[in-house]
Amino acid sequence: MEGIKIVTIGGGSSYTPELIEGFIKRYPELPVRELWLVDIPEGRKKLEVVSALAKRMVEKAGVPIEIHTTLDRREALPGADFVTTQIRVGHLEARAKDERIPLKYGVIGQETNGPGGLFKGLRTIPVILEICRDIEELCPEAWFINFSNPAGMVTEAVLRYSGITKTIGLCNVPIGMHMAVAEMLEVEQSRIHIDFAGLNHMVFGLEVYLDGKAVMGEVLDKLASGPSMTMKNIVDVGWEKDFIKALNLLPCPYHRYYYQTEKMLEQEQQALQDKGTRAEVVQDLEKELFTLYSDESLAVKPKQLEERGGAFYSDAACNLINSIYNNKQDIQVVNVRNNGAISSLPADSAVEVSCIITNEGPKPIAMGGMPVAVSGLVQQIKSFERLAAEAAVTGSYHTALLAMAINPLVSSDSTAKQILDEMLEAHKEYLPQFEKSYAG
Amino acid sequence: MEGIKIVTIGGGSSYTPELIEGFIKRYPELPVRELWLVDIPEGRKKLEVVSALAKRMVEKAGVPIEIHTTLDRREALPGADFVTTQIRVGHLEARAKDERIPLKYGVIGQETNGPGGLFKGLRTIPVILEICRDIEELCPEAWFINFSNPAGMVTEAVLRYSGITKTIGLCNVPIGMHMAVAEMLEVEQSRIHIDFAGLNHMVFGLEVYLDGKAVMGEVLDKLASGPSMTMKNIVDVGWEKDFIKALNLLPCPYHRYYYQTEKMLEQEQQALQDKGTRAEVVQDLEKELFTLYSDESLAVKPKQLEERGGAFYSDAACNLINSIYNNKQDIQVVNVRNNGAISSLPADSAVEVSCIITNEGPKPIAMGGMPVAVSGLVQQIKSFERLAAEAAVTGSYHTALLAMAINPLVSSDSTAKQILDEMLEAHKEYLPQFEKSYAG
Amino acid sequence: MEGIKIVTIGGGSSYTPELIEGFIKRYPELPVRELWLVDIPEGRKKLEVVSALAKRMVEKAGVPIEIHTTLDRREALPGADFVTTQIRVGHLEARAKDERIPLKYGVIGQETNGPGGLFKGLRTIPVILEICRDIEELCPEAWFINFSNPAGMVTEAVLRYSGITKTIGLCNVPIGMHMAVAEMLEVEQSRIHIDFAGLNHMVFGLEVYLDGKAVMGEVLDKLASGPSMTMKNIVDVGWEKDFIKALNLLPCPYHRYYYQTEKMLEQEQQALQDKGTRAEVVQDLEKELFTLYSDESLAVKPKQLEERGGAFYSDAACNLINSIYNNKQDIQVVNVRNNGAISSLPADSAVEVSCIITNEGPKPIAMGGMPVAVSGLVQQIKSFERLAAEAAVTGSYHTALLAMAINPLVSSDSTAKQILDEMLEAHKEYLPQFEKSYAG
Amino acid sequence: MEGIKIVTIGGGSSYTPELIEGFIKRYPELPVRELWLVDIPEGRKKLEVVSALAKRMVEKAGVPIEIHTTLDRREALPGADFVTTQIRVGHLEARAKDERIPLKYGVIGQETNGPGGLFKGLRTIPVILEICRDIEELCPEAWFINFSNPAGMVTEAVLRYSGITKTIGLCNVPIGMHMAVAEMLEVEQSRIHIDFAGLNHMVFGLEVYLDGKAVMGEVLDKLASGPSMTMKNIVDVGWEKDFIKALNLLPCPYHRYYYQTEKMLEQEQQALQDKGTRAEVVQDLEKELFTLYSDESLAVKPKQLEERGGAFYSDAACNLINSIYNNKQDIQVVNVRNNGAISSLPADSAVEVSCIITNEGPKPIAMGGMPVAVSGLVQQIKSFERLAAEAAVTGSYHTALLAMAINPLVSSDSTAKQILDEMLEAHKEYLPQFEKSYAG
Repeated sequence: MEGIKIVTIGGGSSYTPELIEGFIKRYPELPVRELWLVDIPEGRKKLEVVSALAKRMVEKAGVPIEIHTTLDRREALPGADFVTTQIRVGHLEARAKDERIPLKYGVIGQETNGPGGLFKGLRTIPVILEICRDIEELCPEAWFINFSNPAGMVTEAVLRYSGITKTIGLCNVPIGMHMAVAEMLEVEQSRIHIDFAGLNHMVFGLEVYLDGKAVMGEVLDKLASGPSMTMKNIVDVGWEKDFIKALNLLPCPYHRYYYQTEKMLEQEQQALQDKGTRAEVVQDLEKELFTLYSDESLAVKPKQLEERGGAFYSDAACNLINSIYNNKQDIQVVNVRNNGAISSLPADSAVEVSCIITNEGPKPIAMGGMPVAVSGLVQQIKSFERLAAEAAVTGSYHTALLAMAINPLVSSDSTAKQILDEMLEAHKEYLPQFEKSYAG
Repeated sequence: MEGIKIVTIGGGSSYTPELIEGFIKRYPELPVRELWLVDIPEGRKKLEVVSALAKRMVEKAGVPIEIHTTLDRREALPGADFVTTQIRVGHLEARAKDERIPLKYGVIGQETNGPGGLFKGLRTIPVILEICRDIEELCPEAWFINFSNPAGMVTEAVLRYSGITKTIGLCNVPIGMHMAVAEMLEVEQSRIHIDFAGLNHMVFGLEVYLDGKAVMGEVLDKLASGPSMTMKNIVDVGWEKDFIKALNLLPCPYHRYYYQTEKMLEQEQQALQDKGTRAEVVQDLEKELFTLYSDESLAVKPKQLEERGGAFYSDAACNLINSIYNNKQDIQVVNVRNNGAISSLPADSAVEVSCIITNEGPKPIAMGGMPVAVSGLVQQIKSFERLAAEAAVTGSYHTALLAMAINPLVSSDSTAKQILDEMLEAHKEYLPQFEKSYAG
Repeated sequence: MEGIKIVTIGGGSSYTPELIEGFIKRYPELPVRELWLVDIPEGRKKLEVVSALAKRMVEKAGVPIEIHTTLDRREALPGADFVTTQIRVGHLEARAKDERIPLKYGVIGQETNGPGGLFKGLRTIPVILEICRDIEELCPEAWFINFSNPAGMVTEAVLRYSGITKTIGLCNVPIGMHMAVAEMLEVEQSRIHIDFAGLNHMVFGLEVYLDGKAVMGEVLDKLASGPSMTMKNIVDVGWEKDFIKALNLLPCPYHRYYYQTEKMLEQEQQALQDKGTRAEVVQDLEKELFTLYSDESLAVKPKQLEERGGAFYSDAACNLINSIYNNKQDIQVVNVRNNGAISSLPADSAVEVSCIITNEGPKPIAMGGMPVAVSGLVQQIKSFERLAAEAAVTGSYHTALLAMAINPLVSSDSTAKQILDEMLEAHKEYLPQFEKSYAG
Repeated sequence: MEGIKIVTIGGGSSYTPELIEGFIKRYPELPVRELWLVDIPEGRKKLEVVSALAKRMVEKAGVPIEIHTTLDRREALPGADFVTTQIRVGHLEARAKDERIPLKYGVIGQETNGPGGLFKGLRTIPVILEICRDIEELCPEAWFINFSNPAGMVTEAVLRYSGITKTIGLCNVPIGMHMAVAEMLEVEQSRIHIDFAGLNHMVFGLEVYLDGKAVMGEVLDKLASGPSMTMKNIVDVGWEKDFIKALNLLPCPYHRYYYQTEKMLEQEQQALQDKGTRAEVVQDLEKELFTLYSDESLAVKPKQLEERGGAFYSDAACNLINSIYNNKQDIQVVNVRNNGAISSLPADSAVEVSCIITNEGPKPIAMGGMPVAVSGLVQQIKSFERLAAEAAVTGSYHTALLAMAINPLVSSDSTAKQILDEMLEAHKEYLPQFEKSYAG
């Protein structure tokens, strides 16, 4: 059949309009025939709002993309060319717990590579693996593109515990860093190239090029002096100038959690008092967005969506799908099987690295080993991800504890156990695999 | 200054008209301001013929490329953006010895990865390293692009024994394989993509894609059945069908020497009787070409040049220069520092691998390890190249003997010594570094 | 129960008296309570002769070792502490074919790492893996010590295709090299230490020490000058002095096949004419030995046994068992899982390397990577072993062909196929796993 | 000359009597002919006290060991068989600063792998490298055995920045763990074997064997339940039982600093208030010891010496020297060049690993990679050691800052800078290499 079939699981997400906009914008070269928005029964209402908006957007744009909705993903999957997932098991309520509980023990929750991320992974990975089994059965040729966080841990789990090899984890951090660097240097984005290597939310720019010339020194000077690059959802506490110069790498915004732990903790504690957790802030934003989406006169993506931390996520997804479909052979930074690209990390692990995107999929560029100064931290997060993925699959209490205890944000074995126990209890509805081991 | 300055060492080569044609064809996007053709005093006459033709070609095409000639490369180098080398130390006479002497001992000479290649390397590498020193001094920002054979060994030597990192070794084999596969499948070249990995003249296609779908099985069926893919300069002795299916990799034409040694040896011995060595055949071709070039009415590249084994070499060079200059980010197969791209080979060695070509240079794509069935042979040739490069620099008789003895074409330590001794004597004019150790 | 239980599969072998002698000699520290000699029904007669001799030997020595015999290994295995195997699937008749058929095609048969070894492996590995399954079931705590050739390939197969981890492959080559070096230097064996690394019958001495001082240079001088070190079963064709000096490693006797291929081939062809294959020579020796063994007055190991190529094999086995049982922590050279000891070979492959022998088993000593000059050849033999083991298990014709074609002794794909086809036919009685793929 | 010559640099140390006792005890098999005690001029008085005691000890024991003293190490070195170093640049006063200053910023000083260790390394490494240069010149055949802390960092520096390869770093931690495990299990030490792998003060028992059987589970049960194993100088804060079971590795006492950071920090802050830093406690102990040593009636090592954290250090040194001299081939745990023994760490780095000790030196046993759960932390400390060693040699402020900032005990880039700046100032007398970069 002509055209592309895309299935978006978690289609009722507030991010979906960005995705729709992305497909509309690219329609001339990326002919999406069908877009299936799939959600779970309890998300029915959001799905209705979002899909109605999607239909209005498509109609207004005048492109022949069919919007389908279903609460049964097995109905949607057959014949899919691309399956994307943007799910949030346990909703923002769960995220709020991921952030609040660790803070009680003086530990940053950090919803991807911290204790919060561990629990997000424990909840999300089993669901993702079920989706993978359906894909293997119903559309084995499809590309599986995940942008549910923690994207690195999820990609690790898919590579280790499913039969799917055509899988890509997506993140908007590298694209954000690229944009920020271009802005700092006051040049067009296309003149900048950055060699990225690391893990999801633990990625470094190894070198920055302007028109092919290495300009890391200049970029770091600016980063350390002026207001430093960050994400919408991460407070900028400033970098120690000498440290940044010594590091001689471009850190990602999330590195603040590891290199400025104290300050970030203070900020989070202050913010919690002032306005609740980030999850709670986002809940308010979500409500606002859905009120907007419900307005039947709205037929474009509203500006407010860009206020979310996840801005450009869906655009990145469209870009990726476009490059695969059209064999663009451009460079994008995604989470894939390492295959030796970062020689200091296991070849069979997921890494976040600059890839060339072809119609055979992303091919990672060989970066050598991570620089000495960061190879330990990166390995530690990779170990955390691996143990977390294993715990999510096996439901082993000890493996989960080990993941928690080796996380760089957790500084004591007994604190690790306390946080783990309280969070297991708090999330038990979404963690059936821990039923037995928890009792033990 | 506007435009690009290119210095071509060995500019009096018969291949030069292809280079000129390449620059003319690409002028709109690749504005070559100056092309310096450099040669040694004894090549003065050829240089005059070739540069005169070059000037006529440029004039006829109406592009403002200045053609300069000099017998002193230090005059040419300052300010160069690209330096290319296409030198032949000892001329075709030396190549004839490289081929004839091993055959006396029942061994294929093989001018790149065989005993002949060892001696070509021993003669060529010291000259290349002198050129490198001049580049480091006079135009340290230039890209150094070598297409003198043995290109893998030369690149290994430049990486290990010079201070130059912006170096690329070029080969026309992968481009020829790509074209041949497209022809076999009767599709346009642009629809085919091949993942290449290995060493110079020891490169494998790991997978072949047609429109993004893996089609290795189909390609190998065709390769094993019909007339098999080869180079102008390599006899096609046919592949054993079951072997090719078992291998499940696309071999390069030079693999015949290692997987069909007996037949290739017979062919070479027969050919020697019939028409002399390949070198001698080429000498006649060369004479013809220079007669053509001298014709003042000629102002285009003559068709006959394409009969040479090195066809498309210069075109490949122009392509590469163009992609670097214009940051094309296309995939080309070149010889570069491995950097982990092929995980079963040392990170600091030269490999031939699919790279994305940017304005920061080629970035190799991570291919994982060489497949089990070929990893030994590839490592053996890499060891041969390393020892040969070391011997070329140190003039160590023992290291040269070791290189000769471990070459897969040489099956006995005593034969290795006999060939080595006779070749050292035959080439002594071009091997001053062996003066002492040879006496010993 | 007090004392050790040992099960020897292939107990009717002519080597068994050496094993008995070894256990008698070591009885005071190695109290063997029961020794079970197991053989197959068609070996019943040999088993009777050998076990009768064994009983006479034990009685004469006055040690309380019980000798049991059985034709059903499952009767013998329960409670075993050590299981040793010395089997020869297809008997010497099969070995004769392993040697004769390749020679018809101008290729050395080489019963371990050559075409002959491939077929020995194809016959032997399935039987060994059945034994492994019985061990896993009946005596999972036992050490499994194999000295059936090709010992490297068999160990690779056990590591990859059985659940047994307590497995060791044994070889008498390193011990023979050690003895020969001591003899060359005219010193006691205990003053010599050699760092061994490589594969079975492809092992190198990386350094030789006399009283802790490196003496490789001196040893190689002697090796290259006088009569060179070899095995009873390998002709000494002499080493090229300069090659050996250049190599700067101690080669094993089997390296002649790869570094002196032509001369070895001539020798084998001559020997075939003169006295038949080595297998046929051994058949005569065997007959002689069994005539001796049948003599009821004989109650010691006869001297003639030492004429076999496998001399010291059984002694090496007793030594190994003794060191494990008594936690001797001495250094022995055995075939075990690499575990990074030789960094240029896969961590999960079998290697032959100096190990410290403890009561937890052998622990390999870290040797770094194989030296550049030999890493290719060693990798090629490892690849050959891996493919051969895979073919033995899967019965894949293509995998067997690939193993044959990449063997360094085989120089052509079509020759590989011819030898393979003739040998598959000749051995089909012992290769049920190839029934189908052969037909294809 | 008969007998062994040993040179002990830092001979005036209070540990020396243990060394003397060790040599006396082993005299029959380890005939020390001359022991040279070397110190710096300001240590003259201590040297006199210690050497006088040494002479009384030797005389009383009736062994012919000559005790020499000198303030010029170049007088002592010629002809040495072993050179040992036990130096403390800046004395206990400096150590007190190493501990006090970080505590001001809420960071544990930790005198080996913490901020304190960084400064100990910056002071010590340049002195050690000068000693190395003298050894290379005056006794190039000698073994250089260092037990100055931080021993891992110092060994890394010697391997990277000196020409000495015969170097070993010594630590008493593994021997203490071995003793403690034997005590826990109530068995003789000789029945226990532990596979050790990691770094100095960051070493893990990968498996514990009792009579060859793996007993890690039992050992960890005991470790987590009863009073846990520790050093004299490290407070026992107890392990979280579930964590230890989850880890499934035997941690070393120093791991408390990383897995129980908060509690250890509290303890240190409390202890500081109660009795000053550990350095200050040790200063008092030292005074006491020297008072004892000065007693001319004392001719044996006083019991009180065993109260020091460094107990068994000198005994370990004697053991090591004995095993090298007598080619004991026993297993000891020392700091040496990795050489692939721990495959997840660089081959050319220093690691602490079980080695077999021969007269050619220690040969590390291949352990595979560090387990997933700890590979990140171990790599981080290795990176810290490498950067610290580099900073010690180059005097680079940025490199020192990077080392400080990536240390797992330091949680903020700005705190890292504050501690670094205050410590550079406090120690400036001993850090001439930082003169310039500090000013900058």
